[in-house]
Amino acid sequence: MKASGIIVEYNPFHNGHLYHAIQAKITTGADVVIAVMSGNFLQRGEPAFVDKWSRANMALKNGVDIVLELPYAFATSNAPSFARGAIQLLDAAQCSAFCFGSEDGEVNSFERSLLLLQQAGDNYEQTVKDAVSRGLSYPKALNEAYTMAANSSTIEGPLADLSKPNNILGFHYMEAARNIDSEMKAVTIPRIVAQYHDDAVAGNPIASATGIRKSFFESETLGTITDFMPDTALELLHDWQAENQSFGNWPTFYPQLRFTILREGPKRLAMIADVTEGIENLLYRAAADNGTFEGFMKDVKSKRYTWTRLQRMLTHIFTGFTYDIRSSMKTPSYLRLLGMTSAGRLYLNEHKKRLKLPLISKAAAFSNPSLDFDIHAADMYALGIGNGTSSSRIGVDYNTHPIIIQ
Amino acid sequence: MKASGIIVEYNPFHNGHLYHAIQAKITTGADVVIAVMSGNFLQRGEPAFVDKWSRANMALKNGVDIVLELPYAFATSNAPSFARGAIQLLDAAQCSAFCFGSEDGEVNSFERSLLLLQQAGDNYEQTVKDAVSRGLSYPKALNEAYTMAANSSTIEGPLADLSKPNNILGFHYMEAARNIDSEMKAVTIPRIVAQYHDDAVAGNPIASATGIRKSFFESETLGTITDFMPDTALELLHDWQAENQSFGNWPTFYPQLRFTILREGPKRLAMIADVTEGIENLLYRAAADNGTFEGFMKDVKSKRYTWTRLQRMLTHIFTGFTYDIRSSMKTPSYLRLLGMTSAGRLYLNEHKKRLKLPLISKAAAFSNPSLDFDIHAADMYALGIGNGTSSSRIGVDYNTHPIIIQ
Repeated sequence: MKASGIIVEYNPFHNGHLYHAIQAKITTGADVVIAVMSGNFLQRGEPAFVDKWSRANMALKNGVDIVLELPYAFATSNAPSFARGAIQLLDAAQCSAFCFGSEDGEVNSFERSLLLLQQAGDNYEQTVKDAVSRGLSYPKALNEAYTMAANSSTIEGPLADLSKPNNILGFHYMEAARNIDSEMKAVTIPRIVAQYHDDAVAGNPIASATGIRKSFFESETLGTITDFMPDTALELLHDWQAENQSFGNWPTFYPQLRFTILREGPKRLAMIADVTEGIENLLYRAAADNGTFEGFMKDVKSKRYTWTRLQRMLTHIFTGFTYDIRSSMKTPSYLRLLGMTSAGRLYLNEHKKRLKLPLISKAAAFSNPSLDFDIHAADMYALGIGNGTSSSRIGVDYNTHPIIIQ
Repeated sequence: MKASGIIVEYNPFHNGHLYHAIQAKITTGADVVIAVMSGNFLQRGEPAFVDKWSRANMALKNGVDIVLELPYAFATSNAPSFARGAIQLLDAAQCSAFCFGSEDGEVNSFERSLLLLQQAGDNYEQTVKDAVSRGLSYPKALNEAYTMAANSSTIEGPLADLSKPNNILGFHYMEAARNIDSEMKAVTIPRIVAQYHDDAVAGNPIASATGIRKSFFESETLGTITDFMPDTALELLHDWQAENQSFGNWPTFYPQLRFTILREGPKRLAMIADVTEGIENLLYRAAADNGTFEGFMKDVKSKRYTWTRLQRMLTHIFTGFTYDIRSSMKTPSYLRLLGMTSAGRLYLNEHKKRLKLPLISKAAAFSNPSLDFDIHAADMYALGIGNGTSSSRIGVDYNTHPIIIQ
């Protein structure tokens, strides 16, 4: 049996994701699709709309055969590290291809870009550093350096446009695969959602996850997002709402985040991963001054830091993820199975001796600092959802068995 | 002008406190009464019913002339350290006497007890240690050792009964005064509330603060406690309720406490002051399992730890008060003025050159780790009261000027 890998967040799962999963299977002629999925905190530094189990369930009912969890340390990291973690998992799961959505839709342009940056080497790095020291945000600095390299290059044919968010991720997936000499083939699928943040528009079956969440939080009813999701996924959102009343986002998690920022104080905040350059003082003051997340972000946002970078700091503050803890998790060391279909189970049975990392079906049976932190982060998430009062979901992650869909 | 000192919590101020303040003045023939008062967290390890400013205001309207804050490190500590901090402040404020309520009502019996324990010395300490290692709580162990020493003593005349809570504090006040060779005279006033936890009974003007709080939290209306408080104090409770909607107690603060226990994890909990002997694991498990404070305490309470001792750990966890921080605050280093009457102001003007510690009227003008922590603890308290959402009261402690009553 042959597997194709995809890297996802499903926040929440929508019609565009369904299309992507099916395309990944068809385009590559694979028997199963393996999704590496972020846990309860996401790459843009946000708590997930619903937890990993609900999102894995949505995926398994809609074209995905195996869901593996991308550990917290990678799931909440910048694009290169996120990509590295995810690609290593897909490689360890013996995928023969990995498949990503991109604005470009053309693998060759990514290959040219890889070659370009390889040739530019130190020059490129220096240009990035200079731009950051001039006050540009990191993504803007990267983009400036990339454009400069492209302008002075002799490589023929179009390059990938690395100002587009999915192209950036795609580029890093391919870079990561090259760096570990992976035998996986890279395949890209043009995104049918043209813009990353496409709003949800009634009558159009496709909207971005960002648009769907926005639509929900503005209306506070799932009724406004039914057009954009498969029924089985929507049903799981209804189940979630019945059980938890609230959905994950920073405004809901803010009271506990704020308490934590003020309790820790600037000195201890500076030990938290991604908190750099004295921003701990700004975070502390903003938390002291603001009772809402909106006001808080208004105070801390500046040209120097992207929204995403700030939110990643907040995620790490919320979970207590320090530089020390991060430095102990340089590379993924297990494949955590969140769920599988019967086809997925067949694939795993067939390949189990050749998997490059141990497959974890039950957290309680395996001891590992990275897995422990995933479980810890799930508890923090549950407290955020329940504002500290729900007792039922604490420890869930430790005890839950993988979802099995027949 | 002559001052008498008293040591108080006023949680909240009631008719018994009024009586005690007046008696302190009359008995000692003093011109002013100086109260050393705990801040927002109290000796039994609880958040105060209302904050220090409200409670100071109640006192200044009801017989107290000067209110000084007992710093957090002493206010939330065990009886000997609480007493040491408070007595040092009264001594530094040049009081000629200190006056405490006791069950015994007789200074001589305390003096005999002091002599007894001085004579028993190491024997006494050893008996305490042995009893603790047999599994007794610390207060029970002390009491056992004290009874043994009393039985083999040749001192004539009655000893203080150190199984009574106010007698214990009184004993430690006198011990602290002796240890610093204070010239203050010790005076005790028999408590008119016979039992420390006396319930509030309609028609009787005297109830304990514990009884008053219990009555309020059961009924959730201030109407049930009007009989037991001076009108001016009750009015301040109404003002507090209008502004904050809630009053301080652990059930209200529990969501944030729980989040903090689970975020910190056992390893970091063990660095918090008073967290000893592996109890961090028990605290962590109990927080994971319980959505209510009641359930949490049921799980952690055992014969080994008194309720008070457990609550003190929780207070320190809530505020982030580590062993490290505590070790930097061995002795009070300032007199923080929370408020004064015009008589109090005259007294301070007359004595300002002879005060043994600097008098702080404005926190912003003085830099000191202990004062910084008092301000920090006040912010934590405000977040507990407002469940992280109120923005108005953060930083209040830093900017508030002393209350002045004409």
